Amino acid sequence: MQTNNAQYVVVFTSILNPDAEAYHQWGKQMESLVVQQPGYISHKSFRNPEGLGVTLSYWESLEAIRFWHTNTQHQQAQAYGKKEAYLEYTIEVCEIKRAYSFPN
Amino acid sequence: MQTNNAQYVVVFTSILNPDAEAYHQWGKQMESLVVQQPGYISHKSFRNPEGLGVTLSYWESLEAIRFWHTNTQHQQAQAYGKKEAYLEYTIEVCEIKRAYSFPN
Repeated sequence: MQTNNAQYVVVFTSILNPDAEAYHQWGKQMESLVVQQPGYISHKSFRNPEGLGVTLSYWESLEAIRFWHTNTQHQQAQAYGKKEAYLEYTIEVCEIKRAYSFPN
Repeated sequence: MQTNNAQYVVVFTSILNPDAEAYHQWGKQMESLVVQQPGYISHKSFRNPEGLGVTLSYWESLEAIRFWHTNTQHQQAQAYGKKEAYLEYTIEVCEIKRAYSFPN
């Protein structure tokens, strides 16, 4: 549950195309790539049975988020995502203003 | 997928106690209450089969988030959550710096 004092979270909400056959392969590739990015802290993903999902990724800085966004392999994945994998998505780049947890 | 120009999102990540019998009743009550709050925009929830879940709630302002936090019934729910419903949770109050969506 710890996010190690992350300053930023990217909220990526999506509706998956159920026919996107290469999605899991692309997803695995991006997971192994993102963890190597400078300024990356952690991520977690959820998907409801109806296909609505969210991935939260935590970052040290806006620069780190931008750098990942422009990664060549990630851009190929983004193109695949728009062409085949997602029916819809929303990306929100957010600054964490306050955080608290239980147990403290 | 639209969040109607929300300025803030609260990311509530939790691990549910599988023995929390009154959880769904409390959850339904809070859902019907939160939608009536001033400054509330929308929310969506996800939970993985292992019990890890996230609720994203979208708000117009930090004041609206604070007001909801101090709602009497919500505070009772928070007390129940700490006592019985959640093994762990993290709340992150975030300002949306940039948002984009597909299709545009």
